[in-house]
Amino acid sequence: MALIDLPRVGFVGLGLIGGSLALALRESGFAREIVAFDVATETLRRGQEMGVIDRAARSLPELMAAVDIAVLATPTLASEGLLLEMLRNPGSTQCVTDVASVKGNLCSAAAKLAPELAALYTPGHPIAGSERSGVSAADGELFHGQRVILTPGDFTADSSLALATQLWTSVGARVQLMDVGEHDAVLAATSHLPHVLAYALVDALAQSPLRDDIFRFAAGGFRDFTRIASSDPVMWRDIALANREALLASLDEFSGHLDTLRAAIDSGDSEKLESTFRTAKTARDGFARELARRESDAR
Amino acid sequence: MALIDLPRVGFVGLGLIGGSLALALRESGFAREIVAFDVATETLRRGQEMGVIDRAARSLPELMAAVDIAVLATPTLASEGLLLEMLRNPGSTQCVTDVASVKGNLCSAAAKLAPELAALYTPGHPIAGSERSGVSAADGELFHGQRVILTPGDFTADSSLALATQLWTSVGARVQLMDVGEHDAVLAATSHLPHVLAYALVDALAQSPLRDDIFRFAAGGFRDFTRIASSDPVMWRDIALANREALLASLDEFSGHLDTLRAAIDSGDSEKLESTFRTAKTARDGFARELARRESDAR
Repeated sequence: MALIDLPRVGFVGLGLIGGSLALALRESGFAREIVAFDVATETLRRGQEMGVIDRAARSLPELMAAVDIAVLATPTLASEGLLLEMLRNPGSTQCVTDVASVKGNLCSAAAKLAPELAALYTPGHPIAGSERSGVSAADGELFHGQRVILTPGDFTADSSLALATQLWTSVGARVQLMDVGEHDAVLAATSHLPHVLAYALVDALAQSPLRDDIFRFAAGGFRDFTRIASSDPVMWRDIALANREALLASLDEFSGHLDTLRAAIDSGDSEKLESTFRTAKTARDGFARELARRESDAR
Repeated sequence: MALIDLPRVGFVGLGLIGGSLALALRESGFAREIVAFDVATETLRRGQEMGVIDRAARSLPELMAAVDIAVLATPTLASEGLLLEMLRNPGSTQCVTDVASVKGNLCSAAAKLAPELAALYTPGHPIAGSERSGVSAADGELFHGQRVILTPGDFTADSSLALATQLWTSVGARVQLMDVGEHDAVLAATSHLPHVLAYALVDALAQSPLRDDIFRFAAGGFRDFTRIASSDPVMWRDIALANREALLASLDEFSGHLDTLRAAIDSGDSEKLESTFRTAKTARDGFARELARRESDAR
């Protein structure tokens, strides 16, 4: 039973993630009405044409007055300001949640508000995505069987957390709670740092005097390794800055291990090289098996 | 027209690469007879059962006395000693070539021999492989449409280079000549360095206190980025040591770019971050398009 029978759900920002969640909510029958506000009116028109949303709000306050749950689903850089605006103008909402990849900066911003305003906020992060973007790429199955991390703060009201949990559970996602600092450290290690490394490598090679031969003779392994360097530069600039502290910590940890490997190569320490490579292979093989099992479960 | 009508071809080491080339030569009708020597007699028996080779030689000198072209296809670490042994005991060979990923160490070793012995050697490197290994995984199509880099030295006789070129051309590979130093630098950048980075990252994460959550929440992008960390630790230990100088140069070049990115993150330099990420994305997108075109041509 939902805490609110057939809640009205609003979206601030209707891109791939917002649109996909709206579509999934429509299919799950969780929401009575789905409303959206986006600075791009063309996006709202497209969302209505596709049947992703019931109607568009003309302003943020209009949206907040019309819904029980508000989901912030804009690019990273815009999120902090919009979140504060939403929480300061709660309208009829009983839960404000979001989908940003970095949570620490949003939690810190919310924690500075009056407790009764911050209480509405449940920070969220669905671990799902696509190379595609925009509401036209919305996919109602995107979150099915996938994990959604919620990082409630001391400020978060139980009623807000319960609504956010029900929202995601209704579309087949698996909700897990995590400490916000741990969330940002885990995401820095598994996603943000690999992006920075891939960008740094391709940037270095692109400026090499051997550039032409490098790209001519690179093969499938290099394609896999550098795939994430084809990601959106603006989105990743914003994520790197929003998660700066955790990313720098993760980067420095990595650099320490890389320095050790460099010294082993330099000194011809074959035992150290082999044992390091073997530890990594064992961990990576285990991870790949576990991911394959999860993906098989999700289908 | 072959310089030698229907040459006899011998393999020293009959694994995935040697076995695949033997199978492809059998299918192309290039060779009159295919002979192999391997320290593992079980491998030779399996090669005969599969019809990959005509017969096994019981020793390296016996093989060299029985063939016109000898292909060294052993693991990296064994290659240098075996190459010297082959060139010092040329038997009836007019071309000795190899398939190792690193060429500088083998060229240096050959260059120290008497000129008439070194003249037989044409260093080679097929840019093709598979996650699988061993003669049982031999695939006669492995090299079709793929590139093979030959790095002839000043010591290499034209007749040896011509035979190595014909050997690879007959199985549908595209032969390109390259300076040995450039070869090792290009391979360090596109293959050896990415392996070291992937191993270093997974090794760092495997030792993190957040290890369990890290591997639990890592997703598809991380799987692609770390796929090469599942490679054979012994093979990559040997490659890292054999190509030490070029690998260290490539690693230091990368570290310089990574340091610059780190400083941009630390200081919140969003313009530098975005322009670096954008340069990398453009280069990587161009590479991916070009690779897709090559793969489509190869089919």
